[in-house]
Amino acid sequence: MINYPNRKQTTINSTKIKTHSYRGANLEDDLNQTNQYYLDLNKANIHKKPTPIMVVKVDYPSRNKAKIIEAYYKVPSTTDYNGVYRAKAIDFEAKETNSQTAFPLKNIHPHQFEHMRNVEYHGGICFLIIRFVYYSETYLLYFHSLDEFIKSNDRKSIPYSWIKENAYLIPFSLTPPIHYLKILDETLFKGDKK
Amino acid sequence: MINYPNRKQTTINSTKIKTHSYRGANLEDDLNQTNQYYLDLNKANIHKKPTPIMVVKVDYPSRNKAKIIEAYYKVPSTTDYNGVYRAKAIDFEAKETNSQTAFPLKNIHPHQFEHMRNVEYHGGICFLIIRFVYYSETYLLYFHSLDEFIKSNDRKSIPYSWIKENAYLIPFSLTPPIHYLKILDETLFKGDKK
Repeated sequence: MINYPNRKQTTINSTKIKTHSYRGANLEDDLNQTNQYYLDLNKANIHKKPTPIMVVKVDYPSRNKAKIIEAYYKVPSTTDYNGVYRAKAIDFEAKETNSQTAFPLKNIHPHQFEHMRNVEYHGGICFLIIRFVYYSETYLLYFHSLDEFIKSNDRKSIPYSWIKENAYLIPFSLTPPIHYLKILDETLFKGDKK
Repeated sequence: MINYPNRKQTTINSTKIKTHSYRGANLEDDLNQTNQYYLDLNKANIHKKPTPIMVVKVDYPSRNKAKIIEAYYKVPSTTDYNGVYRAKAIDFEAKETNSQTAFPLKNIHPHQFEHMRNVEYHGGICFLIIRFVYYSETYLLYFHSLDEFIKSNDRKSIPYSWIKENAYLIPFSLTPPIHYLKILDETLFKGDKK
């Protein structure tokens, strides 16, 4: 099955997807909504970073307005999301796949692996949020688990079965759509009051 | 004196600046170099976020290359820099001013004040790095100090004399150019070993 590393929605498999109660919103929208919910309820301050763009040419049609007329997308060297929760630095990447059997590792750039390893070294909480669109399932996979997999495997993808065992399924709710901090509360901050 | 909120270097005052041993590199370059130094020496993982840009039109001159042909700068809603140091979330904004007497608060957007207040609420370490170009001096001002100033003042700018008293002068060195983590070590992590 084709993989879409740039997180763009596609309609190619829409018939198949519909039969599996696909909810319509993509992972990025769900996460934006979730992070806004956390912000509004004073639970955490986590944001998506802007997409890195290299600006080449800027035009000034009027005195105060800069219009970018030539620019290119850059390969990201860090992750897409970061912020603060319970004083801890939070850092994660989010990806969705249409595969029914595995999560392809080429979805993540080598620089991003290095970055995540480094964030964890400094004591930040680092993870991946992976959505299997076909199953309508979203998982939280701690980076240290992913790192163990990579170090003991030559595979180019992580089997779905391995993820089911080693990652945490994030239950779907309406508010917020992806309550990933719940997983952190239950696994890292167990017993802590807030 | 004119203030340049977009951090662009200017040559208008070059004669005057030169007489005050201006070093040439701007604050952003100095910070990028400093953060790279911290990363290389495994001291911290702190990055400048990409500039937020709203992409309107993209052209595809060849199959794999996306060329952005219409885009606009967006007003930032968060700060420019964040990351992790000693497991703590770090979040700051950096600004330089050519003024000899005060730091104009219009340099910081209302959204950014809200953001910094919120980061501090969640236990993140939040501050401003302010450079007075005229004096070749760079200060670290904790957000809670800035917030006290704002709440007890109607002024549109912070007097230089107030900053000298309430912020920390970051000593200039070559490696790294702006060793701001030293200030954190001496004020927040006093006595902690690393």
